[in-house]
Amino acid sequence: MDNRPIGVFDSGLGGLTAVRELSRLLPGEDIIYFGDTGRVPYGGRSRQTIIKYARQDANFLSSFELKIILVACGTVSSTALDIVAAESSLPVVGVVRPASQRAAELSRTGRIGLIGTQATIRTGAYERHITTLRPEAELISQPCPLFVPLVENGRFRPGDVVIETVVREYLQPLKDRTVDTLVLGCTHYPLLREVIAAFMGPEVQLVDSGAEGARRTADRLRSMDALADPGRPGACRYYVSDSTEGFAQLASVFLQRDVNEQVQQIEIENFDSGI
Amino acid sequence: MDNRPIGVFDSGLGGLTAVRELSRLLPGEDIIYFGDTGRVPYGGRSRQTIIKYARQDANFLSSFELKIILVACGTVSSTALDIVAAESSLPVVGVVRPASQRAAELSRTGRIGLIGTQATIRTGAYERHITTLRPEAELISQPCPLFVPLVENGRFRPGDVVIETVVREYLQPLKDRTVDTLVLGCTHYPLLREVIAAFMGPEVQLVDSGAEGARRTADRLRSMDALADPGRPGACRYYVSDSTEGFAQLASVFLQRDVNEQVQQIEIENFDSGI
Repeated sequence: MDNRPIGVFDSGLGGLTAVRELSRLLPGEDIIYFGDTGRVPYGGRSRQTIIKYARQDANFLSSFELKIILVACGTVSSTALDIVAAESSLPVVGVVRPASQRAAELSRTGRIGLIGTQATIRTGAYERHITTLRPEAELISQPCPLFVPLVENGRFRPGDVVIETVVREYLQPLKDRTVDTLVLGCTHYPLLREVIAAFMGPEVQLVDSGAEGARRTADRLRSMDALADPGRPGACRYYVSDSTEGFAQLASVFLQRDVNEQVQQIEIENFDSGI
Repeated sequence: MDNRPIGVFDSGLGGLTAVRELSRLLPGEDIIYFGDTGRVPYGGRSRQTIIKYARQDANFLSSFELKIILVACGTVSSTALDIVAAESSLPVVGVVRPASQRAAELSRTGRIGLIGTQATIRTGAYERHITTLRPEAELISQPCPLFVPLVENGRFRPGDVVIETVVREYLQPLKDRTVDTLVLGCTHYPLLREVIAAFMGPEVQLVDSGAEGARRTADRLRSMDALADPGRPGACRYYVSDSTEGFAQLASVFLQRDVNEQVQQIEIENFDSGI
């Protein structure tokens, strides 16, 4: 039994979709969440900048007494997970490996679609993991650079002509290639689930990478015998790098519940590892 | 005569639309441009974060021997111009005051539209300047949070259904109020000029805030007797805070010419003023 908190970070608030799943699976766990709202989005930035930011994010979380870190960001998980893991004394879980495994298991035909940020697609990380598990699988990837700004501007609801137009444009090539499984490779995308599912049709199974990362984190804690006392109520604490104003309202969209917990602003660029 | 360079900065590459006008007006001037590509966009961030970033941007430029600074960013000009100017030993020109003056002069009916980032609209800076110049003027403001990500993703061309849908949504209220002048309050927006002009109609005059800032900079240099030797060829040097990869291609879109000049990456967070 281990009552130390789980650390979770993302470029912004999308990673809260993973926190939601984590709290559902393990309601007794304390969670410390960091969202880099002062520098979001990461998905269009260069590899070296993503690595720099990810190191600072992990260093900040490491200033707490944690038991594990979940990198709830598709861009960081695909670009910098090995670096973050190598430099941390804690177990580090990302979203790419668990989501790849889930997609490889779910797909009947082996034709798997992947949507994510430009940075995520560029790394080829999903392709490597999926073809290791299923060498005959065919991964059809599509960068979706407008999804994060659209979601952050509240443009994710069915009937919104802008998001429906963009979804059609990005996903038509995957539909034409008759993928039977589609990986939502960015933790912002679960908010688009309804619009994406309506476009792709009921025969296409959607894999939520953030939720898969949360499940893998729970599995790791179980195997380490490091779950928290199940009788206690878990608490969340939030940290952001921009103003905390408006946090509760935006966070409630991702968490799908009211947010009354503490949120605090920090200076993330002060958490350099000195490397 | 003063051959020292003009410093120009923006949150990203949108400010290059002002550089373009500056080079057209004063081809003999050297220009040093900084684009904060590692932290773009600024328009959705809090006032305090915009101020922090703007100070670092101005501090970086101040490490050169300049004669004037043009803040070619609508968000910084409306949020932090007074602070940047007060802390700089150089003359500092923004885009809000010159664009307000131009709009107040051009408008026949006094019904003036303004489009900009959320941060720009929130400050009320344009309203203050325009009603000082023309107390009876009516400013109708519209934040356009999706314009910067759309432009940066190359979605600015007529016929693109996404940008045309978003333009219609944002600008219909201004059209309904029969504005006769529309301020493009963000230096990214000149790329949308064709789509915006087609929607608003030929009777609405568009004011390009970056170009007005460039004209004001030229006027200030003239009045200070600080223009460069007109016989010399001006040179541009570019600095960015993310990777320089792809810079030439993207910059050429904003400058509307091939870009062969030197570009260098710097660590912008090291340029704290210590305030």
